[in-house]
Amino acid sequence: MSQLRVHNLTMSVDGYVAGPEQSLQHPLGVGGERLHGWMFATRAGRAMLGGEGGTAGVDDAFVVRGDVGVGATVMGRNMFGPVRGPWPDEEWTGWWGPRPPYGHPVFVLTRHARPSVTMEGGTVFHFVTDGPESALARARAAAGGADVRLGGGAATIRQYLALGLVDHLHVVVAPVLLGDGERIFEPAADLAFRYECAPPVAGDGVTHLVLTRRPR
Amino acid sequence: MSQLRVHNLTMSVDGYVAGPEQSLQHPLGVGGERLHGWMFATRAGRAMLGGEGGTAGVDDAFVVRGDVGVGATVMGRNMFGPVRGPWPDEEWTGWWGPRPPYGHPVFVLTRHARPSVTMEGGTVFHFVTDGPESALARARAAAGGADVRLGGGAATIRQYLALGLVDHLHVVVAPVLLGDGERIFEPAADLAFRYECAPPVAGDGVTHLVLTRRPR
Ligand SMILES: NC(=O)c1ccc[n+]([C@@H]2O[C@H](COP(=O)([O-])OP(=O)(O)OC[C@H]3O[C@@H](n4cnc5c(N)ncnc54)[C@H](OP(=O)(O)O)[C@@H]3O)[C@@H](O)[C@H]2O)c1
Ligand SMILES: NC(=O)c1ccc[n+]([C@@H]2O[C@H](COP(=O)([O-])OP(=O)(O)OC[C@H]3O[C@@H](n4cnc5c(N)ncnc54)[C@H](OP(=O)(O)O)[C@@H]3O)[C@@H](O)[C@H]2O)c1
Repeated sequence: MSQLRVHNLTMSVDGYVAGPEQSLQHPLGVGGERLHGWMFATRAGRAMLGGEGGTAGVDDAFVVRGDVGVGATVMGRNMFGPVRGPWPDEEWTGWWGPRPPYGHPVFVLTRHARPSVTMEGGTVFHFVTDGPESALARARAAAGGADVRLGGGAATIRQYLALGLVDHLHVVVAPVLLGDGERIFEPAADLAFRYECAPPVAGDGVTHLVLTRRPR
Repeated sequence: MSQLRVHNLTMSVDGYVAGPEQSLQHPLGVGGERLHGWMFATRAGRAMLGGEGGTAGVDDAFVVRGDVGVGATVMGRNMFGPVRGPWPDEEWTGWWGPRPPYGHPVFVLTRHARPSVTMEGGTVFHFVTDGPESALARARAAAGGADVRLGGGAATIRQYLALGLVDHLHVVVAPVLLGDGERIFEPAADLAFRYECAPPVAGDGVTHLVLTRRPR
């Protein structure tokens, strides 16, 4: 069965996956860029930015695994970009340049309809206005049996967690404090029963935690 | 200068240091007892309960360090016990039996006055009704130049963090989900500037994070 998987989601010690005041200058909110240092030190992380070199240890393995077996991605509109409200035009096509590192269909949750955008290298952005279950169904169909990756951000992950639809949640705790921003965990008494957490894995200056859904 | 130090404060992956519904049966709230398994596997943790044996690695070292150089403790009334509201009588004298593992004066924050209680082995519980700054001043005086340990719980730590009075905050992340309960981190934009976090230290199934206050 096709799974819904979150990978490399990096959280501060105080529980935020994005800092406050997201903008063009601060895609991850103020201070949020400090979260992902570990990833851009890895070989796979550098390759994602078109670079070379990088470490090839446990952090790199986690980054690589995030893409394996994935046939489509779902993300929230704030992860797609800094534009808010009705789209003023169709200029914004994501943070990732003409050739985004997805290479498959990406379903962007938003309340603001927009025609699909075809990028180089197999990435097509589709804008889904009828909610998370519809976005997942469309992503599953597009993935043709492969898994669906849930990219983020926080609001999107919170909804899929509350719906009980996330199968695999890889959280990376970075030794960073953000003070404020977006959390993925909100009070939800049944979360404790629905997921289990594997023993932590020490990376290079970060900690990897993998939550998996208990069998129903 | 005498420091205010938090040690061995164990937090779930979803950010709680106590589960919901604290009671006599569930001192750490429902599910919260799973947080401290790592501590009671260590030699120092077992000794605290009057037991023997236990591991002597990095986790044990962190537990031991928590008591060194400490001359007084401050804690919140919910950490002291499950009784809420005005004290019905003076029977409750803490979770720790006749000889609590403090061995020094302990200042319990509460809005409900109560005479001090002298226990065996040097522990005296004082009840402080005029707020956290007063409790800390009294603890500092009692510690006679030594450090003050801030025991918890969540509400108490949140207040001392907000006041900028915590010097050392050792948080242990356990691979546990609680779903709901008490958090120590609440949105506080300046926290990110006031503290820095050392690289994580891998324990036996848990991760140690040490936050220290930046010099002013
Ligand atoms: N730390 C990490 O590893 C990591 C990973 C991924 C992302 N991030 C960061 O997370 C931040 C984004 O997270 P976020 O919580 O602000 O937002 P988000 O989840 O990316 O997007 C929220 C937006 O998605 C749309 N949306 C969500 N649910 C919807 C629904 N049920 N129906 C219709 N539209 C829906 C809405 O857009 P409209 O307003 O258009 O309706 C909503 O405003 C960014 O800073 C990103 O960089 C961090
Ligand atoms: N995970 C860990 O490592 C760890 C460590 C320590 C404790 N804990 C757990 O944390 C939980 C307790 O935390 P909590 O957040 O519920 O409560 P808490 O901080 O222990 O106590 C809160 C109470 O302290 C008193 N108080 C706090 N601030 C005050 C002020 N400014 N003035 C007067 N009184 C004040 C009030 O008592 P009154 O209602 O009497 O006024 C308040 O209800 C327990 O379950 C404990 O086991 C966990």
